[in-house]
Amino acid sequence: MNYKLIFRIIGMIMLIEAIFMLVPTIICYADDDIVAGNSFAVTALGLILIGAVAVFLTQKRKTDFYAHEGFAVTSLSWIIMSVAGALPFTLSGEIPSFIDALFETISGFTTTGATILTDVEVLPRGLLYWRSFTNWLGGMGVLVFLLSLIPAVSKSNGSNMYIMSAESSGPSVGKLTPKLKDTLTITYGLYIAMTILCFIVLVIGKMPVFDAVCAALSTAGTGGFAIKNDSFASCSPFLQNTITVFMLLFSVSFNIYGLMVFRRFKEAVKDEEFRIFWIVVVSAIILISVDTRGLFSSWEETIRHSAFQVGTVMSTTGFASYNFDTWPSFSKGILFILMFFGGCAGSTAGGLKMSRAIIIIKNLFREISKILHPHKVKVVKISNKPVSEQVISTTMAYLAAYCALMIISFIIISLDGYSIATNISGVVACFNNIGPGFEAVGPVCNFSGFSNASKIVFSIDMLLGRLEIFPIIMLFNKDAWSRKL
Amino acid sequence: MNYKLIFRIIGMIMLIEAIFMLVPTIICYADDDIVAGNSFAVTALGLILIGAVAVFLTQKRKTDFYAHEGFAVTSLSWIIMSVAGALPFTLSGEIPSFIDALFETISGFTTTGATILTDVEVLPRGLLYWRSFTNWLGGMGVLVFLLSLIPAVSKSNGSNMYIMSAESSGPSVGKLTPKLKDTLTITYGLYIAMTILCFIVLVIGKMPVFDAVCAALSTAGTGGFAIKNDSFASCSPFLQNTITVFMLLFSVSFNIYGLMVFRRFKEAVKDEEFRIFWIVVVSAIILISVDTRGLFSSWEETIRHSAFQVGTVMSTTGFASYNFDTWPSFSKGILFILMFFGGCAGSTAGGLKMSRAIIIIKNLFREISKILHPHKVKVVKISNKPVSEQVISTTMAYLAAYCALMIISFIIISLDGYSIATNISGVVACFNNIGPGFEAVGPVCNFSGFSNASKIVFSIDMLLGRLEIFPIIMLFNKDAWSRKL
Repeated sequence: MNYKLIFRIIGMIMLIEAIFMLVPTIICYADDDIVAGNSFAVTALGLILIGAVAVFLTQKRKTDFYAHEGFAVTSLSWIIMSVAGALPFTLSGEIPSFIDALFETISGFTTTGATILTDVEVLPRGLLYWRSFTNWLGGMGVLVFLLSLIPAVSKSNGSNMYIMSAESSGPSVGKLTPKLKDTLTITYGLYIAMTILCFIVLVIGKMPVFDAVCAALSTAGTGGFAIKNDSFASCSPFLQNTITVFMLLFSVSFNIYGLMVFRRFKEAVKDEEFRIFWIVVVSAIILISVDTRGLFSSWEETIRHSAFQVGTVMSTTGFASYNFDTWPSFSKGILFILMFFGGCAGSTAGGLKMSRAIIIIKNLFREISKILHPHKVKVVKISNKPVSEQVISTTMAYLAAYCALMIISFIIISLDGYSIATNISGVVACFNNIGPGFEAVGPVCNFSGFSNASKIVFSIDMLLGRLEIFPIIMLFNKDAWSRKL
Repeated sequence: MNYKLIFRIIGMIMLIEAIFMLVPTIICYADDDIVAGNSFAVTALGLILIGAVAVFLTQKRKTDFYAHEGFAVTSLSWIIMSVAGALPFTLSGEIPSFIDALFETISGFTTTGATILTDVEVLPRGLLYWRSFTNWLGGMGVLVFLLSLIPAVSKSNGSNMYIMSAESSGPSVGKLTPKLKDTLTITYGLYIAMTILCFIVLVIGKMPVFDAVCAALSTAGTGGFAIKNDSFASCSPFLQNTITVFMLLFSVSFNIYGLMVFRRFKEAVKDEEFRIFWIVVVSAIILISVDTRGLFSSWEETIRHSAFQVGTVMSTTGFASYNFDTWPSFSKGILFILMFFGGCAGSTAGGLKMSRAIIIIKNLFREISKILHPHKVKVVKISNKPVSEQVISTTMAYLAAYCALMIISFIIISLDGYSIATNISGVVACFNNIGPGFEAVGPVCNFSGFSNASKIVFSIDMLLGRLEIFPIIMLFNKDAWSRKL
C-alpha cells in the first residue's frame, strides 16, 4: 500500500473541501447568521490545517499506484469528506446529533437526498446551499474533480485511471481522449455548463435566484435535496417539467455528451445503453400515465407527474412533485423496480446502472444458449463491442454483493420495527442513492424516526451504492493494508 | 430434438399418474363420494388411453438424448401432469374454475402449498389425499421416480443424467454409485422409508391415521398442503415438534442420507452445505426466539413456534403453527430473507438452495481477491472439492434469471392492486415454493382473491422455481425445437 500517496491525495481533498466551504460561509455572514458562518469557517480552517500538513509531509513519494490503492483512497476520501462536511450542521446547532448530521451529509455527497430533517425551510441559507452543493460535488465525484484540475496526482496515466474508475459509476470507464486528464476536464466542463444551463432555464421559469442555484446543483448531481418541505409539488408545471428533463439528461453517460462535442453523433446515437435507457423511460411514463389517469383532471397533468416520478426514480434523484406512495399498486410496483436500475454508467445517477443490467441479461441469454450449443463460444457485446470476460464476471459478482449487502442491511434495520415495505424500500432507496421509498420513508416522510444504528447502516448503504461496493469492501480487507502490496 | 423419446417418456408419466390416482379413487368410493370417485376414475382412464398410445407408437426410437431434450421433457411432463392432476378438482365440482384447480395442482406438484381454497375441511377425503400426494410426488420428482423404476428410459447413462439433473434441485447432481439408476433407487427408497417413519411418529403422537398419512406426505415433499384450515396451529406440541424435525430432515440433501447408508459418515458430516444449513437454522431459531419471547408464556412455547416457522420457511414447506405475520418486524425480516434461500441441493425443498448461495458468496470473495492479486488463479471450493467454472457461471446466470423473473412477475401481479408487501412476498413465496407470504397472502390467508391472470403468473412462477428456471425457459427457445438439434 502506497501510504504516502494516499495521505497526499486525502490532504488535497481536504483543501478542496475547505475552498468549497467559502461560499456557504459568505452566504451565512451575508445573512447575518454568525453562528452558522463561524461553524463553516472553523471547519474550513481545520481542513486547511490538516490538509496542508498532509500534503507538505508527503512530497517525497512513490508514484506507483494500483487498483486496491485507488479503491482505498476513494473510500477514505469520501468518509473524511463526509465527516468534515457534517461538522457545520452540528456546530451551528441546526442538526444537534452528529450521527444525524453525518447521515445528512453522506446522503448529500452520495446524491441520495434522503433526509432526517422534518422541516428544511427553517435552515439558514448557507446550510441549504451546502446541502445542495454536496449533491453537486458528489454527483461527478471529488477525486475526478481533483484529477481534472491538477497535472498529475500520480505521474502515470494508469494510476490515475484506478482512482477514476473507483469513483466513477458503471462497470467500465470510457475514455474520450487518449489522455485521461483531458477526458476528465471535458467531462467536468460539460457538467458545469449543463448545471448553468439548468439554472438559467429555472430562472427563466421565474424561480428565485437562490432557489434556482440550489435546485440546479441538486438536479445536476441527481441528488434530491430540496429547499422546500414539499420538494417541487407546489412549483409551476414549467419548472416541474424543466426539472424532469434535466434529471433525465444528467442520468445519461457524460461520454455521450463528450462524443457530441467531438461531433461523433453517430457513435452517440448508436450507444446501446443510451437507447435502452430512453426506451425504459418512455415505456414507464406511458404505463404509469395510463394507470394514474383517473387521479388527475387532464392528460397534461397526468403525464407531467408520471414523467416527473419516473425521472426522479430512474435518475435516482429523489425529488417529489406528488406523493407517489398514494398511487395504485401497479405504478408503485414499476417505480419500485426502476429504483434498482438507476441511470447510465458514467452519469451522476446511482443504482445498478443500465449497462450492468444489460450485461447481466445478455450473459443470461448466453448461458441459456450454452445449454443448446455447449461447444460454441459466444461473446457478449454491447453497442457491437465485445465485453471482456473479466467485466462480465465482475458484474455478476457485483450483482451478488448488491443483493447480499441489501439483505444484511434489511435485517439489521428491521430491528426498528417498521413495516416490511418501509424497510425494503428504505434500504433500496439508500443503496441506490434515490432518497424516498414507500410508507414510513415515502416522499412526504423522512428517515428521522430510525434509530442511530439504522441511520449508520443507511449511511454505509449510501456509500456502498455511490462508490459501487468494492472500494468500501476493500477497506475491510486485511490483505489490502499490507505494506508489501 | 428427439421427439419420439419425448413422447414416450410423457406417455409413461401419464400411465404412472393414472396408477397413482387409484388410491384417491378408492378413498372416494369408500366414502360413498361417487362424484369425486368418478372424476378420478375418468381422468385416470383418459390418462391410460393417451399414455398407452404414446408408449405404443414410440417403440422404435433413437436413444440419444441431450441436455435441452432433458429440459424439454421435464417441463412438458410437469405441465401435462398438472393439467391432468387438476381435472378431478374441477370434474368433481369442488373447485369449479379450472384455472383455480390448475393453480392448486401446480402448487401441489411444485411443493409450494399455496392454496386458493378458503375452507379445505369441506373437501372430500379423496381430494385431500390427492393434494397431499401431489406434494409427495413432486417433492422428489416424477421423472426421477420413473428413472428409478424402469431399467432405462434411454439406454445411455448420460441421457438419463440429463433428465435427472433437469428435475433435481441444486447446481450439480451428486452420484452415490457409478450407475445412476442405483443412486435413484436408493434415494427413492430412503424417501419412502423416511416418509413412513414420519407417519409412524405422527400416529404415536395420537394423530388420526388418515391425517397422519396426508401430513407425512406433505411434510416429506416439503409441500405444505394441510387438511385443516388452521394448518398445524391447534396440534399438540409433540406433533408440532415432530413436523418441525421432519420438515428440516427433508431439507437436507438425500445424498447425505445415502452416504450414511453406505457408512460414509465422515463424508456426510464434512459436507459444507449440510453444516452451513444447520448453522443458519439454529441461528435463525435463536434470533427469532429472543425477538418473540414476549408473545408467549414460556420459553418452550417460544422456541417451539420459532423453530416451526424457521423450519417451515427454510424447508419451503409452508405449514403454519402460528400467524407469523403478526410477529415483530425483525422476526418477519429474518423469515422473509430465509424464504429466498430454501434448503439444500438434492433435497425436496425449494428456494435458491444453500449450495447456490455458498457458490455465489465464495465467487464474490474470489472476485474481491482478484482486485488485489489480478494474476493469481483461485479456485472456488465446496467441501474442499473444486467447483467447475461452468457451474459457477451457470449459478451466477441462475441468480440473474431468478431476480429478473421475480421482478417481471411482481410487476404483472401488482395490477391486482394489492400492497407492495403482499405482492413481493406472494411472488417470493410462489417462486421459492413456500406457500404463504405476508399480509394478504399471509399464513391465515390464501391466494383466492387474485385475478386469473395473476394466478397464471403465480403458477408459472411455481413451475419455474421447482424446475429451477432453465427447463421452462427452454420451452420457449425456438432453437431447442429444431429437428436437427
